[in-house]
Amino acid sequence: MKLLRHGPKGQEKPALLHTDGTLRDLSAVLPDIGPAQLSPAGLAALARIDAGTLPVVPQGRLAVPWTGMRKFIAIGLNYADHAAEANMPIPKEPIVFTKTVDCAVGCNHPVVLPQGSVKSDWEVELGVVIGSRARYVSEADALAHVAGYCTINDVSEREYQLERGGTWDKGKGCDTFGPIGPWLVSADEVGDPQNLSMWLDINGVRKQTGSTRTMIFTVAQIVSYLSRFMTLEPGDVITTGTPPGVGMGQKPAPEYLKAGDVITLGIEKLGDQRQTVHAWDPALIDG
Amino acid sequence: MKLLRHGPKGQEKPALLHTDGTLRDLSAVLPDIGPAQLSPAGLAALARIDAGTLPVVPQGRLAVPWTGMRKFIAIGLNYADHAAEANMPIPKEPIVFTKTVDCAVGCNHPVVLPQGSVKSDWEVELGVVIGSRARYVSEADALAHVAGYCTINDVSEREYQLERGGTWDKGKGCDTFGPIGPWLVSADEVGDPQNLSMWLDINGVRKQTGSTRTMIFTVAQIVSYLSRFMTLEPGDVITTGTPPGVGMGQKPAPEYLKAGDVITLGIEKLGDQRQTVHAWDPALIDG
Repeated sequence: MKLLRHGPKGQEKPALLHTDGTLRDLSAVLPDIGPAQLSPAGLAALARIDAGTLPVVPQGRLAVPWTGMRKFIAIGLNYADHAAEANMPIPKEPIVFTKTVDCAVGCNHPVVLPQGSVKSDWEVELGVVIGSRARYVSEADALAHVAGYCTINDVSEREYQLERGGTWDKGKGCDTFGPIGPWLVSADEVGDPQNLSMWLDINGVRKQTGSTRTMIFTVAQIVSYLSRFMTLEPGDVITTGTPPGVGMGQKPAPEYLKAGDVITLGIEKLGDQRQTVHAWDPALIDG
Repeated sequence: MKLLRHGPKGQEKPALLHTDGTLRDLSAVLPDIGPAQLSPAGLAALARIDAGTLPVVPQGRLAVPWTGMRKFIAIGLNYADHAAEANMPIPKEPIVFTKTVDCAVGCNHPVVLPQGSVKSDWEVELGVVIGSRARYVSEADALAHVAGYCTINDVSEREYQLERGGTWDKGKGCDTFGPIGPWLVSADEVGDPQNLSMWLDINGVRKQTGSTRTMIFTVAQIVSYLSRFMTLEPGDVITTGTPPGVGMGQKPAPEYLKAGDVITLGIEKLGDQRQTVHAWDPALIDG
């Protein structure tokens, strides 16, 4: 199932992308897509609905595909060749940092540069959405706690992240730095999360290509590992690191986002995103 | 005003500690204490209530004093003498890390050690609760965005924080690692946040003494600084660093929390906390 939320800010309605390519309204059968609907029981109930009987609806503005996110956790340097381009050693354990939940926006929301930002960068990443509480779960059990997957652009300000002291969190949670979607694809439909190709273009020029096959730590390892340091709750999301080709790693010189750039990106089975980059303007941020 | 929430898990009711020392029920006049009530307009409406006319209620289990927290941001090494005991340089800019919102618990909630934890530590800290959206606010305007203050124990697992690679977030967001309260004291009642004495005892032995007077970065500076990297929303909380005397800094050898320990702590004007420390037991975590 491909689940999504669409419509004007604050009036989003749940919907499903049907196999015939039409959008089907879920608002008569669900209050919203949130933690309850992402649980194993909630997803099973959704799967029992005959989507073909649901009303076809025109697509509105795409929002974050689910509500009730309490944590937006991120894994750093999780692709060996990205670690190399960043001139950082391959980590022995997953590197964990945090994006603000407020930076999560729909897949086509403008990316708004922070005031004075000169090192904002792109990162196509596999997002893992938690469906049931995960606390000290084994690797073998970890994927049973995953509701589904989504495409994420882990937009990052490198100066804030790396040159301002302390942890990476400063450069990761700026407004609009977390486009998610277009939809949340249920885990059963995705199958193996470690065999998904991924790509990102800037202004139509390919910058990132990769596959989740080359992750250092797999989704199952990451969920299990994180669940020893914090309890993962339904609706939480983990963005799992990026393959090579970020702006910081471009040769002969780094390239960063500037107003007017168009970012397009996608992950196999999970759908594509398109963002335009804007100079700082709070009016462009709708959350 | 001293605002709080009390009662069984999931059935908490809003209340106010009256100047006569009794607890007064707010549930007939407010749905809860959340972002709307923490706004300047919400606090002004609360201040117009004659607390003496509200019903006296017996105190139940103390919960986090407000709901709707979306971010639990923390500042590291913000007291010069604590930086010295931690063998870390005085930061040039605030060090920012993130605690999970799920680790926030009431002020007297058990502190439950993570499985196998041998380096869990204590940190008495001033908590700053946001009342109105703060985005690129100046230092001069910053305190106008603060609803109030509270006592926080920024419980920290030092091995997870410092020895597991990557950022500090791994050691800061474990279940029960964020006791908050007993109450949220409105900013008008606190006055100057930079002149509050603070203390923490382990099993009745004084470990930490300090004053917010010796912060490296003031509350106004922190709110202003953070608001350039993320938008602070009503209900968000910032825990602002700890004075000397944490377990990691004890001489001749570090001391860490063990099952059976009793932690008591407090900040002038903001109230006291008391936690018992337990070995890992998920049944003791009520969120």
